[in-house]
Amino acid sequence: MQSLKDKVAIVGVGCTKFGERFDTGFSDLLIESVKEACEDAGVAPRDLEAAWLGSFRPWFAGERNTGSPLAEAMGWVNKPITLVSNICATGMDALRNACLAVASGVYDLVLAVGVEKMRDLGSRSLSETNRSEGHPFLGKGRTAPGFFAMCANRYMHTYGVQREVLAQVAVKNHRHGAKNPKAHFQREITLEQVLKAPMVAEPLGVLDCCPTTDGSAAAIVTRPEIARRMRSDYILVKGIGLAVSTERNIFDPDYDFLGFPPTKAAGQSAYDQAGIRNPREELDLAIVHDCFSITEILIYEDLQFAPRGEGWRLITEGVTTMEGDLPVNTDGGLKSFGHPIGASGLRMVYEVTKQLQGKSGERQVKGAELALAHNLGGPGALACVGIFGTA
Amino acid sequence: MQSLKDKVAIVGVGCTKFGERFDTGFSDLLIESVKEACEDAGVAPRDLEAAWLGSFRPWFAGERNTGSPLAEAMGWVNKPITLVSNICATGMDALRNACLAVASGVYDLVLAVGVEKMRDLGSRSLSETNRSEGHPFLGKGRTAPGFFAMCANRYMHTYGVQREVLAQVAVKNHRHGAKNPKAHFQREITLEQVLKAPMVAEPLGVLDCCPTTDGSAAAIVTRPEIARRMRSDYILVKGIGLAVSTERNIFDPDYDFLGFPPTKAAGQSAYDQAGIRNPREELDLAIVHDCFSITEILIYEDLQFAPRGEGWRLITEGVTTMEGDLPVNTDGGLKSFGHPIGASGLRMVYEVTKQLQGKSGERQVKGAELALAHNLGGPGALACVGIFGTA
Repeated sequence: MQSLKDKVAIVGVGCTKFGERFDTGFSDLLIESVKEACEDAGVAPRDLEAAWLGSFRPWFAGERNTGSPLAEAMGWVNKPITLVSNICATGMDALRNACLAVASGVYDLVLAVGVEKMRDLGSRSLSETNRSEGHPFLGKGRTAPGFFAMCANRYMHTYGVQREVLAQVAVKNHRHGAKNPKAHFQREITLEQVLKAPMVAEPLGVLDCCPTTDGSAAAIVTRPEIARRMRSDYILVKGIGLAVSTERNIFDPDYDFLGFPPTKAAGQSAYDQAGIRNPREELDLAIVHDCFSITEILIYEDLQFAPRGEGWRLITEGVTTMEGDLPVNTDGGLKSFGHPIGASGLRMVYEVTKQLQGKSGERQVKGAELALAHNLGGPGALACVGIFGTA
Repeated sequence: MQSLKDKVAIVGVGCTKFGERFDTGFSDLLIESVKEACEDAGVAPRDLEAAWLGSFRPWFAGERNTGSPLAEAMGWVNKPITLVSNICATGMDALRNACLAVASGVYDLVLAVGVEKMRDLGSRSLSETNRSEGHPFLGKGRTAPGFFAMCANRYMHTYGVQREVLAQVAVKNHRHGAKNPKAHFQREITLEQVLKAPMVAEPLGVLDCCPTTDGSAAAIVTRPEIARRMRSDYILVKGIGLAVSTERNIFDPDYDFLGFPPTKAAGQSAYDQAGIRNPREELDLAIVHDCFSITEILIYEDLQFAPRGEGWRLITEGVTTMEGDLPVNTDGGLKSFGHPIGASGLRMVYEVTKQLQGKSGERQVKGAELALAHNLGGPGALACVGIFGTA
């Protein structure tokens, strides 16, 4: 089995404040995250030999889907820059391509950066895009909350789970995010607030849903033999799995709405590369794609943190809180950060890196050595899962 | 200097008939080119471990800019597929990413495929996109012919060249394309026809411009040690250079409209990787981005086929015809094939591969061992140049 294990190291990460960045343009966000990543790595932006830019809808901000907006933001001339796009998993796939490039030996030091500017248009932007581009499901006037609500209803019906359990996911992630100065929302919420919040798509209220947000995040990667000359606390890539199917797979008559097959496949690929047999025991933390409260529970099962039908127990038993055995979304997740599409995967990598370096302050998972980041897209069409570890 | 030289081999290529494919969808075009590439390589589509899909505007055909449309076309479930986008150089950059992935050792056999379906909307599609996305130049109501016309006027004025010289580029490429059953236009044109054709943007008439077209092309790559077990006439990648700057660079007061700096940079990178010092002497043929007749002449100079100001002589002296020392656009070029954006770079790779394998029939360049493919984007913002050789 071929694997990315220990072939690539992360030597710098950057992440903007996520939120309503009305005063900040697409270019400004890129500059902010790349600058922080460069300072973290102790390199100048001009030292970066190539870049992978993850952005799903640059034209929400009047930019084009090419590498040029990054060249322009950074003042780079004639640098190799590829624009990568894979719906909501765009950010993690940008990192994957940067890792493959470094592993090839053709480049020594490269950048993966994700960005999306969504607040100027708001959620209207995505709905209109889905309609105009003929998304097989969302393009029919259905929405992302509507789709995940069907998953939630099916899950609650099948396993006899109450809405309160879903709400606890939101409460947990907001508790984590309340301590994170980069999160869009930095406040705790109560179970009662979630349950009494305006309904978006039964049973998902507005506090079961992640917000619409502006943001950017970046990572600088190199090979381990170079990394160890740069810093002692570099992070190793242990494996990255990408699984892409069709967005129409939710019309498969056998589809049960109880999970996302690409997450299972991408997770298994990453586990195989990393040599992980028991993720629940071996992982110290995970940052997963909690676009809706139900999604996090389904991901627990898809990623083998819990058997099928028992993911909800990780919530009721507190396993995935900061105090539990396997803290999930220690940074606050999409629930606190929102989901600027191209940026989310790299925001996850930012958190994982800081946690593995022991630099997460009061949100620190003690002794964290092995962590996972999971980026979902589609919904249900694809997923990208990365495993990262201390050197 | 790090290089892709001899790290990656092409073992199969496919190319659809380019043209007005009104009866053929986006998926059909993908299937057609991938199937031909697989048959050429002697592998089944399911054997391909990962893919890079190059498409700049999938939504011209109601598809989305993710890997999913390829998964759906091929019936693939949970395969790693990245969508790559870099304006008009999208196709060649998809190949570059596929090559980096193979060179990394993480995958053994991967696909690069480019596609664009443009005839359903026609040239209106690009104009509206440029406007709605705020292209700094083309978005102001200017068009691609308008930009290249400025280059043509500047070139003619600076070097005292007549319009007849530009027209000879179109005549040459149509003569090559007339013998190519996959070309959009398969007919010769006369100098008089070019000069008397309706004017699009002075001095460029309609026959100085490439058409708007549907098409797809694909290449399958692996490492040389695997390639030599698959076929004796595999092709080696000698180098691929990508150079990305900003689309706004044409507002630089120092810009002279006499060439494209990213082409120079990408070409130099590819030459350095391949160890080429004298391209004019060492290359046996080149397929370059002749979106307009003037463009091919500027590219001659940017790629060092001729000194600055003397590219036009390669046309008047017949150097780049089939009978010349350095045949250019032996397949007919964009002039005969049109420019389905994501497909063009891989259409060039298709021609280069067939030429190096000695399989180009009456268009064969005798003894071809080293060839170049050049893909321009922007205009003038970026370029991707590949060098390929016999094993």
